[in-house]
Amino acid sequence: MDQIVSAPTVEHTSAVFPEGVTLDCGTVLAPVEIAYRTYGTLSAKRDNAILICHALTGDQYVAETHPLTGKPGWWSRMVGSGKPIDTDRFFVICSNVLGGCMGSTGPRSPRPVTGGGTPDAPEPWGTDFPPITIRDMVRSQHRLVKHLGIDRLFAVVGGSMGGMQVLEWAATYPEMVFAAVPIATAPFHSAQNIAFNEVSRQAIFADPDWHGGRYWETGAIPARGLAVARMMAHITYLSEEALTRKFGRRVRPCNDTTGKAAGTLSTFGDIFEVESYLRHQGSTFVRRFDANSYLTITRAMDWMDLGQEHDGEYAGPFVGTGTRFCVISFSSDWLFPTSQSRIIVHALTRAAANVSFVEIESDKGHDAFLLDEPDFDRTVRGFLSGAAEHAGLSRRAAQEGTHAS
Amino acid sequence: MDQIVSAPTVEHTSAVFPEGVTLDCGTVLAPVEIAYRTYGTLSAKRDNAILICHALTGDQYVAETHPLTGKPGWWSRMVGSGKPIDTDRFFVICSNVLGGCMGSTGPRSPRPVTGGGTPDAPEPWGTDFPPITIRDMVRSQHRLVKHLGIDRLFAVVGGSMGGMQVLEWAATYPEMVFAAVPIATAPFHSAQNIAFNEVSRQAIFADPDWHGGRYWETGAIPARGLAVARMMAHITYLSEEALTRKFGRRVRPCNDTTGKAAGTLSTFGDIFEVESYLRHQGSTFVRRFDANSYLTITRAMDWMDLGQEHDGEYAGPFVGTGTRFCVISFSSDWLFPTSQSRIIVHALTRAAANVSFVEIESDKGHDAFLLDEPDFDRTVRGFLSGAAEHAGLSRRAAQEGTHAS
Repeated sequence: MDQIVSAPTVEHTSAVFPEGVTLDCGTVLAPVEIAYRTYGTLSAKRDNAILICHALTGDQYVAETHPLTGKPGWWSRMVGSGKPIDTDRFFVICSNVLGGCMGSTGPRSPRPVTGGGTPDAPEPWGTDFPPITIRDMVRSQHRLVKHLGIDRLFAVVGGSMGGMQVLEWAATYPEMVFAAVPIATAPFHSAQNIAFNEVSRQAIFADPDWHGGRYWETGAIPARGLAVARMMAHITYLSEEALTRKFGRRVRPCNDTTGKAAGTLSTFGDIFEVESYLRHQGSTFVRRFDANSYLTITRAMDWMDLGQEHDGEYAGPFVGTGTRFCVISFSSDWLFPTSQSRIIVHALTRAAANVSFVEIESDKGHDAFLLDEPDFDRTVRGFLSGAAEHAGLSRRAAQEGTHAS
Repeated sequence: MDQIVSAPTVEHTSAVFPEGVTLDCGTVLAPVEIAYRTYGTLSAKRDNAILICHALTGDQYVAETHPLTGKPGWWSRMVGSGKPIDTDRFFVICSNVLGGCMGSTGPRSPRPVTGGGTPDAPEPWGTDFPPITIRDMVRSQHRLVKHLGIDRLFAVVGGSMGGMQVLEWAATYPEMVFAAVPIATAPFHSAQNIAFNEVSRQAIFADPDWHGGRYWETGAIPARGLAVARMMAHITYLSEEALTRKFGRRVRPCNDTTGKAAGTLSTFGDIFEVESYLRHQGSTFVRRFDANSYLTITRAMDWMDLGQEHDGEYAGPFVGTGTRFCVISFSSDWLFPTSQSRIIVHALTRAAANVSFVEIESDKGHDAFLLDEPDFDRTVRGFLSGAAEHAGLSRRAAQEGTHAS
């Protein structure tokens, strides 16, 4: 892979909170900017808002063309007019997480006050960006929701790290969450998942272009290390069955290093199609994602542990909750396996919460929540529709409303 | 991690075959040196030899202190006097695979004839080492076995890549294998396993100290890339349950980069115990293993496909076989899952082979075959003992014999 200079920057819609947010680490991070997108119309009663929380490498462009990659929104299958999260009925909000790199305050943001550089060209935070937790992400989203004039979310929905945010929303602001849909997630990050994240980080640290996190000084980015991290992570998002179905053992001529004829047995010549696919995943990822954000956000996932402040009792944060939960897992997900969703369900049950649980049969692995799974779509559509009845939402709430921003 | 210079070299016992081996790629690799160790005594009838095949990063030091690491042999639990592979009864052979780095011919060996350097200081093969297959490894072991004066092996035993060699032995030299014990293995390398290997290779390629494979010229080795490869691979050798049992979410103060006080939330300070463990696995591995060997051997695994020359019919290589098979898998092994062992068993059954199959209940993952699993030990002991009766081996064969080398 050639050396890649920093990704192009684009303008994002955002809200700035000058007073900032007090983080779990004790630091007051100020100012905090949160980049976001909305879809649909906020009802007059301001009661039809759904907050969608994105996963590790997702962003706010949930249901529209991505301004950097030109690809469709990451959940455009799920969010839109007539879709399971129906923007004809609901006002959908999605924001880039704190610590991210798509317009929200993160390691690439200018460091105020104490940083180096001149006032005209302040240095980025880089590795001095304070440590962020999933709850810190939720705290900043809470600011945004209030800023949009919303006192109570109809629902919070998200998969993977997005599902961790859903759980933290229900735990931290229970009165603001009517319904919660944590998908393919867990109440804590497992030792195995911490281990995978650590390998990702070591791959980035090992890249000489990381320069101790100060890569902005060189104009290059740690593209090779970040690509290795992404390639490894991508395997964990799929399943053995899905990889076998998609690629099997098919070979494609490559010859990118030796010039040997196609079809000959060689160590560096022909490659398997699955390898070509992974290399593509790695090389496209580094053009849109910041390495220091990757470090910050993977660390936030590692610290996720809903039982930590409750002597390991995951029911602790949910005692007395009035939120309706729909917990969803996928049968072939080995990164956030069904057993971890069951821990959530059992904890919510011990807390006497209103909880439904569905394990969707799928061979697509963890990424199933982003892919075409009709049974999953029906589950989300049905739960949200039924919950909307319980919430007393008008069937056409959005059409009676006014847009909030 | 500090820059590490090349690992110290030690003397190994070996046999040299000047005429070399004709490889699957068509190249005649000559000379070929195979480093090996033996344990126990060859019987007078030369009928009690067991060949043990090692896995990706194993070597010939199966049942004695390793000369580089000072650690016990990698299968000393299984091989020795009175142990499941009983050296009081059997003559045990284990050789370093072709392409390896513990004395057998591999990328670190001097390149004859056409290489650069002077005759006094020939260059190593490096990335010009010819591509090796599992069958090529077996061909070179076949030379060694013949060299030791053995016309028929009582048994060939191995786990993981060692199990692939067991299958290739039975397929290539059926008349020379009385019994075969392929453990935690597969008749082909799956798309997911190729994908993991590819990430390992990319991690090595990304290390600037790899220098396009010519790292011997600099005195440094691609330690960071190789460590990342090892860390990732190590996760795949364990299981979520084993990692949770061993490490859970326990944190240990580290502060290796920031000097922050222990116990504070920070991105680069305290680390989870599982991270510390993985870092240790990575840093010790690079002191004993050669990066170009890692590339060569992972590629050999990727090419493993017993069905390739039989239109995808895995029974093809085994039609008419007289070998007795004992196929063993572990319930929590997700790298070489039981489903892949079942493919072997079904193929052997279609070939009307004598085959037993045991799935051992274990939460230790793929590495279970290297760890304390009494049920596994009993299975190997029982099968070998029973097969020895069928083979008409004396109960004390070794004590009547003479050492072969």
